[in-house]
Amino acid sequence: MVQAVHRAFHVLRELATATPRLGVTELADRVGVAKPTVHALLRTLEAEGMVVQDRETGKYRLGPGLVTLGNAYLDSHELRTRAVTWADLLATQVGSAVWVGLLTGREVLVVHHAFRPGGSVQVLETGATLPWNACALGKAIAAFLPAERRTGLLAGELPRVTGASIDAPDLLTAQLDRVRETGHAVDEQELTLGDAGIAAPVFDRTGDVAGAIGLVGPVEHLLTDTARQECAIAVRQVARSLSRDLGAPRNAGLRASD
Amino acid sequence: MVQAVHRAFHVLRELATATPRLGVTELADRVGVAKPTVHALLRTLEAEGMVVQDRETGKYRLGPGLVTLGNAYLDSHELRTRAVTWADLLATQVGSAVWVGLLTGREVLVVHHAFRPGGSVQVLETGATLPWNACALGKAIAAFLPAERRTGLLAGELPRVTGASIDAPDLLTAQLDRVRETGHAVDEQELTLGDAGIAAPVFDRTGDVAGAIGLVGPVEHLLTDTARQECAIAVRQVARSLSRDLGAPRNAGLRASD
Repeated sequence: MVQAVHRAFHVLRELATATPRLGVTELADRVGVAKPTVHALLRTLEAEGMVVQDRETGKYRLGPGLVTLGNAYLDSHELRTRAVTWADLLATQVGSAVWVGLLTGREVLVVHHAFRPGGSVQVLETGATLPWNACALGKAIAAFLPAERRTGLLAGELPRVTGASIDAPDLLTAQLDRVRETGHAVDEQELTLGDAGIAAPVFDRTGDVAGAIGLVGPVEHLLTDTARQECAIAVRQVARSLSRDLGAPRNAGLRASD
Repeated sequence: MVQAVHRAFHVLRELATATPRLGVTELADRVGVAKPTVHALLRTLEAEGMVVQDRETGKYRLGPGLVTLGNAYLDSHELRTRAVTWADLLATQVGSAVWVGLLTGREVLVVHHAFRPGGSVQVLETGATLPWNACALGKAIAAFLPAERRTGLLAGELPRVTGASIDAPDLLTAQLDRVRETGHAVDEQELTLGDAGIAAPVFDRTGDVAGAIGLVGPVEHLLTDTARQECAIAVRQVARSLSRDLGAPRNAGLRASD
């Protein structure tokens, strides 16, 4: 561990999660180091474009260099680059928004968002992180992880985002078993009140689950008896095509049933 | 300067700009430090989620933590959060894509992209960086910077992105004078062959230029005699509304004419 680097990212995380603008004293308190140390870190981060000092208040906030690095990550990620066309296709076919996500730690990172066709105001969710247990993407991924990793996810904290979020490990275990049987996962207002998600896992050339792709939209659109089935079929087909695009073997996903 | 932090971002920049996957030896060469030093940096960056080691090759690539930080920057940036609604409005009104950008160093960072209404496949440009002299956004911002800062921009490197990009400082100076007279900037295939841009500056509560908002689309759509005028009016109006939203004084932009 390089302590200075660890501290620099602690500073960035404080600015990212807590208050968007912090002074040297506040940052020193939060990171738990002396003011001159934080000051040196901030000057270095500023030179790198990772923080910016507010002219009016003298406080620091995150810098634009982070967007460039974040974008470079997204551009270099094969799941994302390959998913763009498939996501657009699925969005057009079903008339709903499509999210593509991957698991990082205990959260799903949305790496691509194809808007619902139609042009009404929509908020871009690329870069958003969602608790794995509260969204269809997360459940689709978790179901096909190695058993050991899955147990770890079920053993940790399972946050409730809405009243419908599932935080009981045994209930989630049963759902994940069902996901492996049907090939797709569903969330019903577990992430957003009024919205549902239907997602299927995507595999890479090693046969491991690389992420998931899925529909997001009003419960009334996605989860009527007929829509639910049609949507599930469409999502599974696109997920399979995307997996093949990533070089996945045809039997990917079967191994996880052990 | 904290050397370890500087080196950590050097590692990240190499992974962002050069080759997306690099081994310890290659990174040590590029950053100019010993292998054990790079190895310690990589382990720290990996623990922070900023790099990931490829299981198959043992090489390193950027990590998902960068997207979270980049997204936090975008979410905390007032220009961006306030611009979303105005950009959607302009896109719907004109039927073209809208970009919102700010100047970082010598480049325009696209912080928001409202898609062209209609639903055909479009690549999201949020996070892209463009040479200031090759796009309408950059020229709209540069025209309203303090004279000293503008001179600095004109004195540095002026890259040509297409055959139509302008790299002559005197020609650019004349264009910027004209931007201050008309209140909007135009690029005609200077960034992308076949595409034009029309942009106007956005000011913040201090009266300084904070960024720009503008249309991007085929030359045939934006730059016919009638369209050009209509688009310029629409862009200037939205830019003024967004500036007022950011608390800009009514006379913002006048000061820059000195």
